[in-house]
Amino acid sequence: MARKYKHLGARLRLVLGPDIAIGPGKVDLLEQVQETGSIAEAGRTLGMSYKRAWQLISTMNDAFKAPVVVTSRGGASKGGATLTAFGEDLLKRYRRIQAQTERVVGPDLEHLTSQLANGCDET
Amino acid sequence: MARKYKHLGARLRLVLGPDIAIGPGKVDLLEQVQETGSIAEAGRTLGMSYKRAWQLISTMNDAFKAPVVVTSRGGASKGGATLTAFGEDLLKRYRRIQAQTERVVGPDLEHLTSQLANGCDET
Repeated sequence: MARKYKHLGARLRLVLGPDIAIGPGKVDLLEQVQETGSIAEAGRTLGMSYKRAWQLISTMNDAFKAPVVVTSRGGASKGGATLTAFGEDLLKRYRRIQAQTERVVGPDLEHLTSQLANGCDET
Repeated sequence: MARKYKHLGARLRLVLGPDIAIGPGKVDLLEQVQETGSIAEAGRTLGMSYKRAWQLISTMNDAFKAPVVVTSRGGASKGGATLTAFGEDLLKRYRRIQAQTERVVGPDLEHLTSQLANGCDET
């Protein structure tokens, strides 16, 4: 049977408005865009279709006053993608509060995991 | 258009194993079971079908060594549902770390909300 959750641990979602939330999916994507300079490549790394990756970026670009990612088509950069200063700030803020949340949650997460019937090895 | 997110703010999900996560949905349900003494009533309060409410409880009861909710069918209590000591502990732990997370996230949440193109009033 397929596993429902891929990543163990504390997952944080910031619901900012009725149509916009920033969670692990969008943040991982921003990070990969920053690393690869390409939305397609970032999506591939995360096992996400280009369409899905583009939709997530587009949702963020539309939601905020400033875009999070800008793209350049053609020319030497061949459709590269770059995080804006706001995109970098968003990524940094999320990573910081994620780390703080993990520290807060750590002991309880450990305790609750110890209360699982089958531990982490169930298949 | 339907709003995608009903509750604004920080949402915390504890992914304990590949098939079990504790997030706002299950925790709200536990809280309502505690308040109403009934899975059906708890589901109704949250706009959730009885089937869905029962599935969420069942997932938790199966995942841990101890159940989170016990039910009694028939008799004077007519199918009442009660949180076990472990269920109460789970609820209390989650609420505590949720409150701590909200304190950690507060200032960034406020800042990011101020960066939204349409504020919170978009329809």
